[in-house]
Amino acid sequence: MKIAILPGDGIGPEIIEQAVRVLNALDEKFEMETAPVGGAGYEAHGHPLPEATLALAKAADAVLFGAVGDWKYDKLERALRPEQAILGLRKNLNLFANLRPAILYPELAGASTLKPEVVSGLDILIIRELTGDIYFGQPRGVRTAPDGAFKGEREGFDTMRYAETEIRRIAHVAFQAARKRGKRLTSVDKANVLETFQFWKDIVTDVHSEYQDVTLDHMYVDNAAMQLVRAPKKFDVIVTGNMFGDILSDAAAMLTGSIGMLPSASLDANNKGLYEPSHGSAPDIAGKGVANPLATILSAAMMLRFSLNRAEQADRIENAVKAVLAQGLRTPDIYEEGTTKVGTKEMGDAVVQAL
Amino acid sequence: MKIAILPGDGIGPEIIEQAVRVLNALDEKFEMETAPVGGAGYEAHGHPLPEATLALAKAADAVLFGAVGDWKYDKLERALRPEQAILGLRKNLNLFANLRPAILYPELAGASTLKPEVVSGLDILIIRELTGDIYFGQPRGVRTAPDGAFKGEREGFDTMRYAETEIRRIAHVAFQAARKRGKRLTSVDKANVLETFQFWKDIVTDVHSEYQDVTLDHMYVDNAAMQLVRAPKKFDVIVTGNMFGDILSDAAAMLTGSIGMLPSASLDANNKGLYEPSHGSAPDIAGKGVANPLATILSAAMMLRFSLNRAEQADRIENAVKAVLAQGLRTPDIYEEGTTKVGTKEMGDAVVQAL
Ligand SMILES: CC(C)[C@H](C(=O)O)[C@@H](O)C(=O)O
Ligand SMILES: CC(C)[C@H](C(=O)O)[C@@H](O)C(=O)O
Repeated sequence: MKIAILPGDGIGPEIIEQAVRVLNALDEKFEMETAPVGGAGYEAHGHPLPEATLALAKAADAVLFGAVGDWKYDKLERALRPEQAILGLRKNLNLFANLRPAILYPELAGASTLKPEVVSGLDILIIRELTGDIYFGQPRGVRTAPDGAFKGEREGFDTMRYAETEIRRIAHVAFQAARKRGKRLTSVDKANVLETFQFWKDIVTDVHSEYQDVTLDHMYVDNAAMQLVRAPKKFDVIVTGNMFGDILSDAAAMLTGSIGMLPSASLDANNKGLYEPSHGSAPDIAGKGVANPLATILSAAMMLRFSLNRAEQADRIENAVKAVLAQGLRTPDIYEEGTTKVGTKEMGDAVVQAL
Repeated sequence: MKIAILPGDGIGPEIIEQAVRVLNALDEKFEMETAPVGGAGYEAHGHPLPEATLALAKAADAVLFGAVGDWKYDKLERALRPEQAILGLRKNLNLFANLRPAILYPELAGASTLKPEVVSGLDILIIRELTGDIYFGQPRGVRTAPDGAFKGEREGFDTMRYAETEIRRIAHVAFQAARKRGKRLTSVDKANVLETFQFWKDIVTDVHSEYQDVTLDHMYVDNAAMQLVRAPKKFDVIVTGNMFGDILSDAAAMLTGSIGMLPSASLDANNKGLYEPSHGSAPDIAGKGVANPLATILSAAMMLRFSLNRAEQADRIENAVKAVLAQGLRTPDIYEEGTTKVGTKEMGDAVVQAL
């Protein structure tokens, strides 16, 4: 089993370091190889996703990814900016299914900006399609408007599109995930306005016939954004497209107030995957030793579960994380009075210890 | 001055009735003419936006709109469904600027699902472009995929597009609004992924040179969704496209917990406008006399301010609404222990009284 380790930028290297330590503390040893990505890829090889990095990611059984991005690359042309690495990896590795749990650990209920009764015990799973939609749809660009009220003017344009296969496969992932949980799936669309999402809704409804034990409902994206704020615990599994999923999964993560705790998985059709924390590269605190490594450590646990088929090891890591929370250890992002503030490395130490 | 009154469906007629009573209680009398729209338009004339209704809206100086939609029209083909009326009115009347305040009245701070310290005193204004973007962009439909990995398959597709003029004019509206408030404007885009929104960002930045007294920042839409949950009071004015604005303005409204209080204005280039509550038609409580008419009454106030140039009358209505809240009157949607529960008509009575 070979794992590609892509630390990236900002706090990426420090949090990945702790996750690697945790993996190394397991009985079984995994082969790991590290490569630069994002700004680090650009510095090393002039491209955010260097060829050797992509080749490594393709050859590996799973990818553990830190975070990419730094303001210092803001002036680069878009194709060279760090975030292109993550888009390139998703597309090249066919990672069409993004699983983003939004879980509120009981010990951290106070960290949320929402009232405890609204969010305590929150446990929802957002499944975002990740290789289609307006993220990748062609044609796109800036052109002279060919028609419409502003014909002849400059305009920016993009194409939203979803083919039947793309919708079917993500729907299957979502129904299967719902089946293993609360058996309720909410498909989020904008079928009242968009042709793409009327089509989406029709296909998801069709796939539902194979999962009659799962309750399916459909919700417009604007309403979903409201319901996440109003009564998030009413959701079990949410499935949606790439663009809506980008927005809703971040909103859902923020409901917990502890985005530093949330892992994510991006899977292909064979459960090969890329695993990364839900938070970003936080260049403002990079190198200070204060970043929370738990989302990355929990991403490593997801990797063991989904791609490496080591559910037991995944459980061990997840339990170790729960144990350090129970011990009252907190990095600054989740610190509250009465708990013990620790840094990135101490948090890693504690998880290794708890294993 | 002529006002077109379009009550629509669900609770639309009852809440509009109270707003009309409030308008009639002012010293100056306005000419008002009522026409069916949405499901009511379909029942009366076989179309959600009957020709006579559109003609009336065009001829009037302003439109006061209730709400449209009812589950009983779910099975109709999309072009006949109630919500097409609102899309048709926006497009035909060129109502490109949607102003949606998200204000939390001090008396209602408890209604929010967010902690009081996070939302009390919230006062943000979301300006959503309303006639462009993927809502109206052609081409769109369901077709055989002409290219890409799923060539030959059925796919749904839509076109996101913004022309320079469209972005410039909404940017001007936004900078001018910011100038009258806290002088801070956040332009929300997804320039890291979408060509349309890189173009948007460039044009907004260009327009900024005419408003150097206003601070402009740019934020990705996923981050904006997070920041609305994390620290909504940091925003002053937000400007964004039609699709992102649909999602963010509903999320922002829900932060207040009292969407029954929030008005909206949709304006053309000459400040002619359509005014409607931010909430929907709530068919489940229609006809029960419990709907909150205040968002519609406050929409009438916005109408007096923006389209009818009667700022003083607008102030009077807004103060009357504050007075009834101070008196402790509450419709069920905003009721809390220790306040007095009233129905739709009693709430209208109280506002008329307070005038
Ligand atoms: C960095 C950006 C391109 C990316 C996205 O929009 O998908 C990020 O927001 C995410 O959600 O992983
Ligand atoms: C009913 C629907 C078409 C509409 C929209 O998406 O614009 C609504 O959600 C709104 O925000 O007014």
